[in-house]
Amino acid sequence: MADPAEPSIAPPVADSVAEGSETVSKNELKKRAKQLEKEKKAAEKAAKQAELAKQREAADVDDAVKFYGKLPLNQSQTRTNRPRAQIGDFSPALDGQTVLFRARVNTSRAQGNKMVFLNLRQRTDSVQALLSVSPGKVSKQMAKWAAGLAIESIVLVEGVIQKSPEPIKSASVSDVEVIISQIHLISGLETTLPFTVEDANRPEKEIETSEQQLNRVLLDTRLSNRVVDLRTQTNQAVFKIQAAIGDLFREYLSSQGFVEIHSPKLQGAATESGATVFKVNYFKGEAFLAQSPQLAKQMAIAADFERVYEIGPVFRAENANTHRHMTEFIGLDLEMAVEEHYHEVLELLDSLFKFIFTGLKSKYKKEIEVVGKCFDAEEFTWLDETLRLNFADAVELLVGDGVPREDLDDINTENEKRLGRIVKAKYKTDYFIIDKFPLALRPFYTMPDAVDPTLSNSYDFFMRGEEILSGAQRIHDPTFLEKRMREVGIDPQSMKGYLDAFKLGCAPHGGGGIGLERVVMLFLKLNNIRRASLFPRDPKRLEP
Amino acid sequence: MADPAEPSIAPPVADSVAEGSETVSKNELKKRAKQLEKEKKAAEKAAKQAELAKQREAADVDDAVKFYGKLPLNQSQTRTNRPRAQIGDFSPALDGQTVLFRARVNTSRAQGNKMVFLNLRQRTDSVQALLSVSPGKVSKQMAKWAAGLAIESIVLVEGVIQKSPEPIKSASVSDVEVIISQIHLISGLETTLPFTVEDANRPEKEIETSEQQLNRVLLDTRLSNRVVDLRTQTNQAVFKIQAAIGDLFREYLSSQGFVEIHSPKLQGAATESGATVFKVNYFKGEAFLAQSPQLAKQMAIAADFERVYEIGPVFRAENANTHRHMTEFIGLDLEMAVEEHYHEVLELLDSLFKFIFTGLKSKYKKEIEVVGKCFDAEEFTWLDETLRLNFADAVELLVGDGVPREDLDDINTENEKRLGRIVKAKYKTDYFIIDKFPLALRPFYTMPDAVDPTLSNSYDFFMRGEEILSGAQRIHDPTFLEKRMREVGIDPQSMKGYLDAFKLGCAPHGGGGIGLERVVMLFLKLNNIRRASLFPRDPKRLEP
Repeated sequence: MADPAEPSIAPPVADSVAEGSETVSKNELKKRAKQLEKEKKAAEKAAKQAELAKQREAADVDDAVKFYGKLPLNQSQTRTNRPRAQIGDFSPALDGQTVLFRARVNTSRAQGNKMVFLNLRQRTDSVQALLSVSPGKVSKQMAKWAAGLAIESIVLVEGVIQKSPEPIKSASVSDVEVIISQIHLISGLETTLPFTVEDANRPEKEIETSEQQLNRVLLDTRLSNRVVDLRTQTNQAVFKIQAAIGDLFREYLSSQGFVEIHSPKLQGAATESGATVFKVNYFKGEAFLAQSPQLAKQMAIAADFERVYEIGPVFRAENANTHRHMTEFIGLDLEMAVEEHYHEVLELLDSLFKFIFTGLKSKYKKEIEVVGKCFDAEEFTWLDETLRLNFADAVELLVGDGVPREDLDDINTENEKRLGRIVKAKYKTDYFIIDKFPLALRPFYTMPDAVDPTLSNSYDFFMRGEEILSGAQRIHDPTFLEKRMREVGIDPQSMKGYLDAFKLGCAPHGGGGIGLERVVMLFLKLNNIRRASLFPRDPKRLEP
Repeated sequence: MADPAEPSIAPPVADSVAEGSETVSKNELKKRAKQLEKEKKAAEKAAKQAELAKQREAADVDDAVKFYGKLPLNQSQTRTNRPRAQIGDFSPALDGQTVLFRARVNTSRAQGNKMVFLNLRQRTDSVQALLSVSPGKVSKQMAKWAAGLAIESIVLVEGVIQKSPEPIKSASVSDVEVIISQIHLISGLETTLPFTVEDANRPEKEIETSEQQLNRVLLDTRLSNRVVDLRTQTNQAVFKIQAAIGDLFREYLSSQGFVEIHSPKLQGAATESGATVFKVNYFKGEAFLAQSPQLAKQMAIAADFERVYEIGPVFRAENANTHRHMTEFIGLDLEMAVEEHYHEVLELLDSLFKFIFTGLKSKYKKEIEVVGKCFDAEEFTWLDETLRLNFADAVELLVGDGVPREDLDDINTENEKRLGRIVKAKYKTDYFIIDKFPLALRPFYTMPDAVDPTLSNSYDFFMRGEEILSGAQRIHDPTFLEKRMREVGIDPQSMKGYLDAFKLGCAPHGGGGIGLERVVMLFLKLNNIRRASLFPRDPKRLEP
């Protein structure tokens, strides 16, 4: 319906009067005057109608003005303690109840000028909300204002929950909708969105199969605009799972008598490997960032802590731009005294992983499903009794699969993945252990095998064919440790504090270090470790 | 008893025969020959006895040799899975039972050559063990070997638990002792102990009041030999409490819907304050160590995480050599969206602290007592309803106590402690909150008060008169934040990533940062923060 106040209402008649006026008769003039009079009246009527409409509009604004609009900046002016609702709690059981809640505008769609459909989002939950013009309640101006809200605005909504006659596919809470009575803006957008959360949350498969031209948001764009990218339901779920892995790690180790420690990241010497250590300006001297809590946790064992774990950042100055390397990641590290055999450690670590996997599947089913919609993966599987191969057995499996034996002094990333596929096919598991690595492949502090000095008491754990844990029995005898240092070209004097710890008596011990982001990436099959890190760091990225 | 094999057995007679031999009669010679014969027989008899003793000795060694000695280096040669006992579990109920356990030699005392008393230690527990010579079981050689074990050696002991007729004051398990049947050395000492654990664990009060000259181990000596220092029962308890605070922090926040995050410590820009930031060589460029997770946790709120916490290292390049500053410490940080008022945060933080205090007192009574023996402190107290002062009220309390008002634009460390004493005397609490700090004292991102622009929505929490938490409502509006940046002289362009997060819409929010080691230090009254850090770092210490 056209707006009656528009200028097109006035007819273009006057001009034709002027044209060829000298040839016009009196009758004709009378007729024209009558016509003009008629047209003038029509114009006056239209103007009156427009005025009335304006007045109605003004009256509407007055009616609804307190039901919508931008709130003043929250500086904690008031406190009503009125409860706020969570979308995840909405259900048909609450039909007819009034709720107040803060949410993001996820999508918005106006239907004519009387109805606005908003998809409102809280983390992994969303609900459809409807704003419908209704006298004395919702004005057209209110609907227009709501329809104009930018995607990703944060709003405070009051509304009534109403059972939905049919499932709303676009919302995670699909059996109810919210009939909006009030909507206020808490925080708007002061810049253009780099991409929408809807685009960022779209599965690759949907983009490939859709007939529409859908936006694909590339990883680098996501990481440069991480704050928006993290709002996707997928990422909200990914980081709930990341946190859950830490919780499960601690829960299991606490039950096994471990105590949490915090070791310093600033080190006086480049201890483990000079090549991949970051140097820090430390007042007038220099310091180095710890490449692992290895030395500290072993010293904690020498200090009788018996069983320790640490969750903390690990720094690696490796100029490696791969899908699974970062310059900073979170290490889940543990170390424990051994009574008789390093398999005590290996078995504890194995139980720990099974505890984590089981905990995730039982308590985070919803989050795994949410991520699964975006990152299509076969469900992660493991065996009740974990497959344990010796390094030599793993080599045989690869040789049997066609890998030349001479390439297998070490198992590189490509062959690791190949081994994962062989194992998956043969043993139906995504999780297994390789034990007894060649001594030459392990750090100097690794305990050699008791019988074969070319082997070591060390192991790696794998998920979907990628290493997620590396560990070993350590050398606790200072004389032997010093000998090994010299053999690999380390000056024992450069690690005096560490060596001294063992000279003061130390129990046999072993442990391991887990890369948290790798476990997240491989459990959920995210394919790039950066997706498992809140604000990833690599040789080319230090922001945001 | 003298050893019969010693050369003093042979009598010094022959020489006297030679002296003045010309004056000697035949009778005399006969007498002398008889005497010599007698002495020869006695010597032969003694030699025979010596030989027999030697044989006996040899026989002893054979009998007991498998019951003691140094074990070969543990390279995981064997595995019997025989259970190992914990000293803390020993009780009269186990009287007569055989136990096998690994422990440190805490002290050792030989009584004659037939008995050795060992005090054996596992973390905060110790027990007396007795080795007593007994035919076919414990040889004298075994006793001698055991008596010679260096303090701090790690031994594997098999013995029988026996009720003690009277309490053994020197052991934490005082109602039983262990009668040793086997004792083997797992790890000995290859250097001189810098100090004994016994000396390191001695309360200052005992040193001051003792009539003996007792060794006092200075803090710097302890820290330079931290591995030994950490073995004291006091330190074992201190670090159990440190871990407990982290556990309680997480437990409470998880129950309140918080999720754990891990933010990067490597930053592209010196964000918060250029003066106190460590610079890192980052490949061909540079990076900076995060002075707090402040920016990251606020960005997590902008990314809809709603309620987040982080436990991680915090780096401060402050050249401050005080009892409460370190260059690296553990921050317990949290941030949460606010619905109406920043007191939602303040109240949650208050509940958190009370949860921690209550948890420590109820679950870690033993550890608090152990530390209390060494660090004499009035028990930490708090009120059911926490005392909350405004900054202005705190100033009045200090003025009333005689501090010149003109010194109180800020409350310095000295006045903080004084305030703590005033509050303790007046309100009987070691824990309180100061709210509404002047805006000028807080960082640029602090939200000003809604009414008085010289005040801010910020607070500090105190324990025993020292600040342990600082927090506030933050500015979530990008225009206002930019204005505040300019006002304090920060170029908004230098914090673009941070500012952009708010331009993309952000809920009102607030939070706080707790210094873990400060809470440990003040709860236990350790008087120096270095005692609450495993391997402390300050401008002068980067080792061990």
